[in-house]
Amino acid sequence: MDSTTTAAGTLSPFAKDLHLGNSLSREKERFEPYNPPYVGMYVCGPTVYSNVHLGNVRTFLTFDVVYRYLIHLGYKVRYVRNITDVGHLTGDTDDGEDKIGKKARLENLEPMEVVQRYTNDFHDVMRVFRILPPSIEPTATGHIVEQIAMIEKIIENGFAYEANGSVYFDVRKFAESHHYGELSGRKIDELQNQTRALDGQDEKRDPLDFALWKKADASHLMHWPSPWSEGFPGWHLECSVMSTKYLGRTFDIHGGGMDLKFPHHECEIAQNMGAHGPEQPVRYWLHGNMLTVNGRKMSKSEGNGFTPEELITGNHKLLEKGYSPMTVRFFMLQGHYAGTLDFSNPALQAAEKGLERLMGAWGLLADLKPCESGEAAPDLAALRARAYAAMNDDFNTPVLIAVLYDAVKVVNSVAAGRMVLNAEGIDTLRALFSDFAADILGLEQEVAGGAGDGDRTDGLMEVICTLRSEAKANKDWATADLIRDRLTELGVQIKDGKDGTSWTFD
Amino acid sequence: MDSTTTAAGTLSPFAKDLHLGNSLSREKERFEPYNPPYVGMYVCGPTVYSNVHLGNVRTFLTFDVVYRYLIHLGYKVRYVRNITDVGHLTGDTDDGEDKIGKKARLENLEPMEVVQRYTNDFHDVMRVFRILPPSIEPTATGHIVEQIAMIEKIIENGFAYEANGSVYFDVRKFAESHHYGELSGRKIDELQNQTRALDGQDEKRDPLDFALWKKADASHLMHWPSPWSEGFPGWHLECSVMSTKYLGRTFDIHGGGMDLKFPHHECEIAQNMGAHGPEQPVRYWLHGNMLTVNGRKMSKSEGNGFTPEELITGNHKLLEKGYSPMTVRFFMLQGHYAGTLDFSNPALQAAEKGLERLMGAWGLLADLKPCESGEAAPDLAALRARAYAAMNDDFNTPVLIAVLYDAVKVVNSVAAGRMVLNAEGIDTLRALFSDFAADILGLEQEVAGGAGDGDRTDGLMEVICTLRSEAKANKDWATADLIRDRLTELGVQIKDGKDGTSWTFD
Repeated sequence: MDSTTTAAGTLSPFAKDLHLGNSLSREKERFEPYNPPYVGMYVCGPTVYSNVHLGNVRTFLTFDVVYRYLIHLGYKVRYVRNITDVGHLTGDTDDGEDKIGKKARLENLEPMEVVQRYTNDFHDVMRVFRILPPSIEPTATGHIVEQIAMIEKIIENGFAYEANGSVYFDVRKFAESHHYGELSGRKIDELQNQTRALDGQDEKRDPLDFALWKKADASHLMHWPSPWSEGFPGWHLECSVMSTKYLGRTFDIHGGGMDLKFPHHECEIAQNMGAHGPEQPVRYWLHGNMLTVNGRKMSKSEGNGFTPEELITGNHKLLEKGYSPMTVRFFMLQGHYAGTLDFSNPALQAAEKGLERLMGAWGLLADLKPCESGEAAPDLAALRARAYAAMNDDFNTPVLIAVLYDAVKVVNSVAAGRMVLNAEGIDTLRALFSDFAADILGLEQEVAGGAGDGDRTDGLMEVICTLRSEAKANKDWATADLIRDRLTELGVQIKDGKDGTSWTFD
Repeated sequence: MDSTTTAAGTLSPFAKDLHLGNSLSREKERFEPYNPPYVGMYVCGPTVYSNVHLGNVRTFLTFDVVYRYLIHLGYKVRYVRNITDVGHLTGDTDDGEDKIGKKARLENLEPMEVVQRYTNDFHDVMRVFRILPPSIEPTATGHIVEQIAMIEKIIENGFAYEANGSVYFDVRKFAESHHYGELSGRKIDELQNQTRALDGQDEKRDPLDFALWKKADASHLMHWPSPWSEGFPGWHLECSVMSTKYLGRTFDIHGGGMDLKFPHHECEIAQNMGAHGPEQPVRYWLHGNMLTVNGRKMSKSEGNGFTPEELITGNHKLLEKGYSPMTVRFFMLQGHYAGTLDFSNPALQAAEKGLERLMGAWGLLADLKPCESGEAAPDLAALRARAYAAMNDDFNTPVLIAVLYDAVKVVNSVAAGRMVLNAEGIDTLRALFSDFAADILGLEQEVAGGAGDGDRTDGLMEVICTLRSEAKANKDWATADLIRDRLTELGVQIKDGKDGTSWTFD
């Protein structure tokens, strides 16, 4: 029995072929949501203690396309992406200072001022890259009550213990009856060998244990009362609490960056099972891969980690120029989300040209005239089927883009008069761009295609260059010089070349 | 002892003259913050169960200008503006359904999906009107723990009682030792006569009592555990909790719409005193007044309540055309916040013209050339002093705008060659616009003034018109016609008039 066909009325016929690369099984599996046409999807959001980095942008772009495609297929998606505003410690484990608390201390701010500032920045960056807001964007501090309740349940079930006001998850105990490490492929004894006992962690029965609740020391700015101490929740807990609160104890898709697979997601699974029983909480786990720059891992310490803003303005030593947000979006979608993606100037410039080609054809499409004796749609329907096949193959956006390039060739042939299409054919092409380029890939026609002022400016420049060429042809040097001088005043540089006159704006 | 002068190093000398219309004393009082240069300001934000209405925009614009002016004076402002995402009932008192829960039920959504949708809308509208984000934007659901703690304190102090799992504030008991009604000017016995016992309120000892915690009935979607019941906090409580958590038990400014004065703000004061003791929690209460349309109260039921979007697009039967967000902002600032403001087409169109005049002069200012024998600054310094005097008089933005219009006259005189200014004079004018029009009123120069691409387009058009005039002078009709044709293709219409050639874009 095919669960998706039971709701076929609302779903695209292509929905039944969607396959997801499930990190849990390490296989591509056919997508069968628990309760179609409803889909629950949870994605780990940012810890809002600093400006968003490009790795975040890639991760959230990946799940933006997943979200857009599921909606396109007719699913009713509840997409939850959280904001971590407490509990994420500088050591990324159970030691160190709270990341937000530390920033607040350094900048002499209230922690929630830090949260607000970087949440605003995060939202601004998401908007610039046309990443849709999720259905719900819950915060860790907004779910203290629920986190305490979940800890109580885990203790009750025997998988956690209190020590000096803190509560730890008992990994060894859990592993006796569950497969701890299933998602990340880690083996508990190997983990044991890699782990060192850390300062202040002697409260733990075992170094593998992780905090569910930490007693706040005097320097800790954010804390709440609990049955165990005035303290704060462990980092992993919030995602278990907020995903199940809004999506149920078992839900369809959980996403996040590859670096969260262990320990964060492994701990989430353990917490959910420790609280709610042995069923796998998440059916499909998806993980987005990392960024590299000129072949090396992007990181602040390597000095090769530019920000979204630097990428757009070109204001970084590794960047030859700025790249528009649409170019960056398009560039990222040219790589499959599960593979690493390498930033380099040639690759970004190629993406810029590719996007221009796509947008150019998309622009031409609006004016194509049908011819009833022209070619009909069959070949074009095949293009559409290939587009679905690409997306159904674990959201393979690079293959989808190749399909769109094939459509570009058709458009250009028609525009050049080398091919004629009937109305059905033209409509099929238009729907292909509108569904796959606009709705699913989230590309915006006007940005690189140049409508509005940019187009007009170029048009006016062409008029002026024509007049200047004529003046030169007529040996009217006074007019030619006047034109050059006036343009210089306006911040326009012109350059005569083999292929005519080109221009750049300051 | 003048408290502001103790921190004179960081504060503008004009700071000491700022006076606020304090709703609590019903007088204009000199502003003396508790701990200068720090200022704490709390403003009641929206209940996010529907799209933002224009009354909200006016209220938040009012406090945006207060915030901007305090920052301009050198104060370090922590501005807290909350999001109400639970507890606000349809009856605006203690009866009815939760506004967000009701919307969720009607639209078959999770309540937090409703919250997210309308929080996004709210942020979008704030951005469109250039209303700055606050320092902290806390939510009611994010402070359940703190609300429970405050209720416990009020009960402990004898000003609240439990009944069937709900907790009510004991107004009569409070009034024995406190002045209940001081802010709103209500008398407790008159209130008594106006109040009817309502269904399901028989738990209250007195109809004046209000809920701090309500036991959730089966239909209630949002609820949390508490010492009294699985339930939810009363509407008034969140603001007492979040203002004091982030600003301290006594803080400087509390703002909100006039309609919140009673019961909401009166109850806030009672709660704060009931929990923390007899000191007034807020030194200055500011209340923004309501909107009218063609002289009648703006309301949905009257059919005269257009949305911000309708106002911008002009898509409403009462609107002759759309008005840009900057025009609306400017229009609203032409009225003092404490008075009602009437929307009408003639008034909006007058504001549009007024803003154009202001922006036109502001644009000219960039190119004014000084003349060292020109007039010096004294008269202009007086303008600046008048600008401060206007803002210091309870943020009197209409008077400030009149001062800016006087500056416009000076700019236009200089630009027309009827007056010359020295460099100091020009700098004084520029600083006046940059401080008061841009930073304090939050007006944006480019909207009506046209910088960027628009400027370049105009520059190129001037070059082309010059070339066309020359062609015509040389009787080179072919070139003149070519220019006109090419411009028509680009959607540019040109028109020859007495004062030269003008152009319009499609």
